[in-house]
Amino acid sequence: MTAALSEVSVRDLLRMKVGRPVDLSAIDPRSTPGLPGLPVTGPDRKSWARAELRRLGDDLAEQQEMLHAQAVAGAAAGRRVLLVLQAMDCGGKGGAVKRVAGAMNPLGLRIQAFGPPTAEELSHHFLWRIRRALPDAGQVGVFDRSHYEDVLVVRVESLVPEQEWRPRYDEINAFEAELVDDGFVVIKVFLHISYEEQRERLLARLTDPTKHWKYHPGDVDARAKWPDYQAAYAEALSRCATEAAPWYVLPADRKWYRDWALAHLLREHFAELDLSYPPARFDLRAEQARLLAGDGHLVNER
Amino acid sequence: MTAALSEVSVRDLLRMKVGRPVDLSAIDPRSTPGLPGLPVTGPDRKSWARAELRRLGDDLAEQQEMLHAQAVAGAAAGRRVLLVLQAMDCGGKGGAVKRVAGAMNPLGLRIQAFGPPTAEELSHHFLWRIRRALPDAGQVGVFDRSHYEDVLVVRVESLVPEQEWRPRYDEINAFEAELVDDGFVVIKVFLHISYEEQRERLLARLTDPTKHWKYHPGDVDARAKWPDYQAAYAEALSRCATEAAPWYVLPADRKWYRDWALAHLLREHFAELDLSYPPARFDLRAEQARLLAGDGHLVNER
Repeated sequence: MTAALSEVSVRDLLRMKVGRPVDLSAIDPRSTPGLPGLPVTGPDRKSWARAELRRLGDDLAEQQEMLHAQAVAGAAAGRRVLLVLQAMDCGGKGGAVKRVAGAMNPLGLRIQAFGPPTAEELSHHFLWRIRRALPDAGQVGVFDRSHYEDVLVVRVESLVPEQEWRPRYDEINAFEAELVDDGFVVIKVFLHISYEEQRERLLARLTDPTKHWKYHPGDVDARAKWPDYQAAYAEALSRCATEAAPWYVLPADRKWYRDWALAHLLREHFAELDLSYPPARFDLRAEQARLLAGDGHLVNER
Repeated sequence: MTAALSEVSVRDLLRMKVGRPVDLSAIDPRSTPGLPGLPVTGPDRKSWARAELRRLGDDLAEQQEMLHAQAVAGAAAGRRVLLVLQAMDCGGKGGAVKRVAGAMNPLGLRIQAFGPPTAEELSHHFLWRIRRALPDAGQVGVFDRSHYEDVLVVRVESLVPEQEWRPRYDEINAFEAELVDDGFVVIKVFLHISYEEQRERLLARLTDPTKHWKYHPGDVDARAKWPDYQAAYAEALSRCATEAAPWYVLPADRKWYRDWALAHLLREHFAELDLSYPPARFDLRAEQARLLAGDGHLVNER
């Protein structure tokens, strides 16, 4: 399979610096970092990105198969990938999962959506529901929302008192460091949309009868707290951007850029794993002989 | 979306009759039941089936979204789909999952592979590991092997004594009836390959270095017990083909037929659910007004 990875590192362009404050208002949700310039006479940027996404998708499917094959062979024990997706409502997590994770073999995926914690979940430690949903060795896990809800919606909506959520940034960093020690590649992505784009997408859900089910009046209540959520995101992104588990802010107003950049980011992380198919751990010739010999035997028997 | 369902019922053609013995040797693994005749001047059957699979896949993705939307809206509580795939080694379960389930949104899928029961699993009731992996309401679950292993590999390899596995046919029927009562659509499919086709596929795994990891010398040991496995399958198919949860035997030597027929079978089951997008449960105009009003407010604030 042809490598579909362009030379640009979307990863370097989107990564938040460790220990620095994050200013989301300085990142344009309509920008397209890393997208190569195209000749005027070629396809438009959107068509190019969609075509490139298909190539990257095939490539990701192959990488995932190699990761799985390694796990089956008992090589590189414990290696797995965890993609954490966070966004405001309508930020495009669902679409990104469909188009990017959807390119991989569903047998090797473990996808889990998290809402605001339920009463039962609140009675446990906030990482309880997270630990239960982690991918197995060889799998690619995707969290559609995550443990970050416990310093986002929980904070803005005051679901638990501040003295309870405040220490969670450190707990999250310790938890993610533990995962990385354990063989996880942790990729945390904030799909960054603008206030105006969210309005357009919410209105679209009201207009299209096949999208009514995605609309919840509570989304507008949350929208009224946009600045509070942006502040909560900025603090989470700043305090939990670590060397072990970086945060990426991905401009997501343009869906075609979002999907291309996310696939590219994943592909860059896979490249670092330097995966290959594991070698045979049996005698090829002996097995071939066994297969052909066994056949004669059974054919006579039938 | 255009309905991709042809008028033929693959479901009727492949379904095992309730209470009748099953003779697998009478079903040709290279046959293609339900595949329409094509004009001589048109595409060949394989190209036609592959193109039709893409259309069916889009259709399945929409059906799955409606199933999910209904669950979100609290309509038709508990409805979900469980596809059980069984086959001899190399029977094509993996390929079928990749091509057919892979057409749907991974967020709405729950896929679980089962091997021969482990020591821990054997210490529990045989349905223990199965119940933990059932799809949630609104999901499509896929079992790559299943509770049937407990009357197949367990029986042929004598993993538990006969007096223990013998009563399981009735237990399985009771369990599946319970699922159907609970809102499940249970679709059980045996991918039926020939002894010769299995040899070809095992040899291919030995030839292609990217497939070595799929090859296990133990597969040849199991192959030597082909007649025992076929007998165990025949009994399971015959004793557990019920009105509530029928068994389908799908000729699977031709991969393009296998994928088309499986997608068609799933689509027929979805058709019976008569799904649609749930209506809005809020005042559309009021929400539109709220969205537009809230905007003015926040823009001034920024």
